Amino acid sequence: MTGVLYGVGVGPGAPDLITLRAARLIAGAGVIAYPTLAGAASFARAIAADLIAPAAREIVMDVPMSVERAPAQAAYDAGAAEIAAALDAGQDVVCLCEGDPFFYGSFMYLFARLSGRYRVEVVPGVTSITACAARAGKPLVARNERLTVLPGPLPQDELRARIDGAESVVIMKVGRHLPKIRAVIADLGLTEMAVYVERATLPDEVVLPLADAPERAPYFSMILLTKGADPWL
Amino acid sequence: MTGVLYGVGVGPGAPDLITLRAARLIAGAGVIAYPTLAGAASFARAIAADLIAPAAREIVMDVPMSVERAPAQAAYDAGAAEIAAALDAGQDVVCLCEGDPFFYGSFMYLFARLSGRYRVEVVPGVTSITACAARAGKPLVARNERLTVLPGPLPQDELRARIDGAESVVIMKVGRHLPKIRAVIADLGLTEMAVYVERATLPDEVVLPLADAPERAPYFSMILLTKGADPWL
Ligand SMILES: C[S@@+](CC[C@H](N)C(=O)[O-])C[C@H]1O[C@@H](n2cnc3c(N)ncnc32)[C@H](O)[C@@H]1O
Ligand SMILES: C[S@@+](CC[C@H](N)C(=O)[O-])C[C@H]1O[C@@H](n2cnc3c(N)ncnc32)[C@H](O)[C@@H]1O
Repeated sequence: MTGVLYGVGVGPGAPDLITLRAARLIAGAGVIAYPTLAGAASFARAIAADLIAPAAREIVMDVPMSVERAPAQAAYDAGAAEIAAALDAGQDVVCLCEGDPFFYGSFMYLFARLSGRYRVEVVPGVTSITACAARAGKPLVARNERLTVLPGPLPQDELRARIDGAESVVIMKVGRHLPKIRAVIADLGLTEMAVYVERATLPDEVVLPLADAPERAPYFSMILLTKGADPWL
Repeated sequence: MTGVLYGVGVGPGAPDLITLRAARLIAGAGVIAYPTLAGAASFARAIAADLIAPAAREIVMDVPMSVERAPAQAAYDAGAAEIAAALDAGQDVVCLCEGDPFFYGSFMYLFARLSGRYRVEVVPGVTSITACAARAGKPLVARNERLTVLPGPLPQDELRARIDGAESVVIMKVGRHLPKIRAVIADLGLTEMAVYVERATLPDEVVLPLADAPERAPYFSMILLTKGADPWL
């Protein structure tokens, strides 16, 4: 019997924002897989750490940081091959993914490689966008409002065009793009409604008006622009 | 000591997609609150049913169905007053919300009424959008792609304009708007990539290509248009 590959969302950071299903799968897993970025510790693994059985085998995909895609592709190819071998041997594999697996999640790269050949179950998780909104006390969208999610690495002109005319906007992957994003938001006259959230739901979380945000943002940061949300009903 | 109001997301439907934190809060709650629509059973309560203590007091806000906002506002006003009385008496109140509280969630209406006066903690939950994507096997967004979330009740012209030029699109609140949405998607030549998802993660879930979707959609249905997502990396 071939094993099942589980792509499991572990939520935005706080270990108790893992779902009951994910917790059960992680605790019962004989093989756990996750990517690490350029040798750094895996955030997804850290979130789930207390649940992982000491005897579990861990398949670590070390994804190099580089502008070209080929080195990262090679890392996912190798990881997929290792996971496939475990599945072929009849073992289930639980792949950990920060937040939700299908929302900018690394699990998508394994899904693309393995879902044609193996049974894959995706376990949705709490995304960083609703976690950041919860921590900031900012409702994202109500009634017939629209939500636009934009990645911070987009070019300045495109960011500007997409934010202008949108209602609620979430900007992901802020990190080193913060100065560019800040300039776009200031230019549109929206700084006052912008909230900066860093490492939401973790002990060192930061929630600040964008105007007071630090000069340098870490990778796990986001900006919320809840222009439209009027939750009074 | 005044009580704390918890706005707790219970996820998209499957009871084990509740988070560990939400499960703990619900199981420990002496007072539970939730809205019902025009006397129908509460979906949020049904999701959490097995966790609710038999002795818990339940504050039910019956929200009438009507085009005018005033009757619904009155229901939330009355619910907020009842919740406030419990908080004033030192009791914590756990308000249940399907999916995530700040993502088109009814809890926003209580948050608007009570967050100025009481301590409110929002517990994010798994949203229906990532649950539907998981069940459909359709990654939502990867890398630098954009995501647009649109409510189905938007006028036909606006839906068309917002879908055209977008990358991944999620259309919520489909229900009786299905024929209109279907026409817009057909007109844009996007029917082939559209997936219809109804009651995701529940035993009677439906996942179909939009072309094969039923004539009548229930309220808990959604359409995914993952135009942009190429998760190969
Ligand atoms: C590759 S994406 C992964 C998103 C994840 N799969 C999810 O569902 O939220 C990484 C981005 O998510 C956002 N992010 C993830 N966790 C976060 C947190 N705890 N606080 C703030 N932003 C977070 C940041 O914008 C970060 O750059
Ligand atoms: C008022 S909104 C509530 C959304 C919820 N707060 C969330 O985070 O997903 C209701 C809409 O969510 C979508 N929805 C909620 N649960 C769903 C499910 N299990 N399957 C499909 N769609 C669902 C439908 O589009 C429905 O019309």
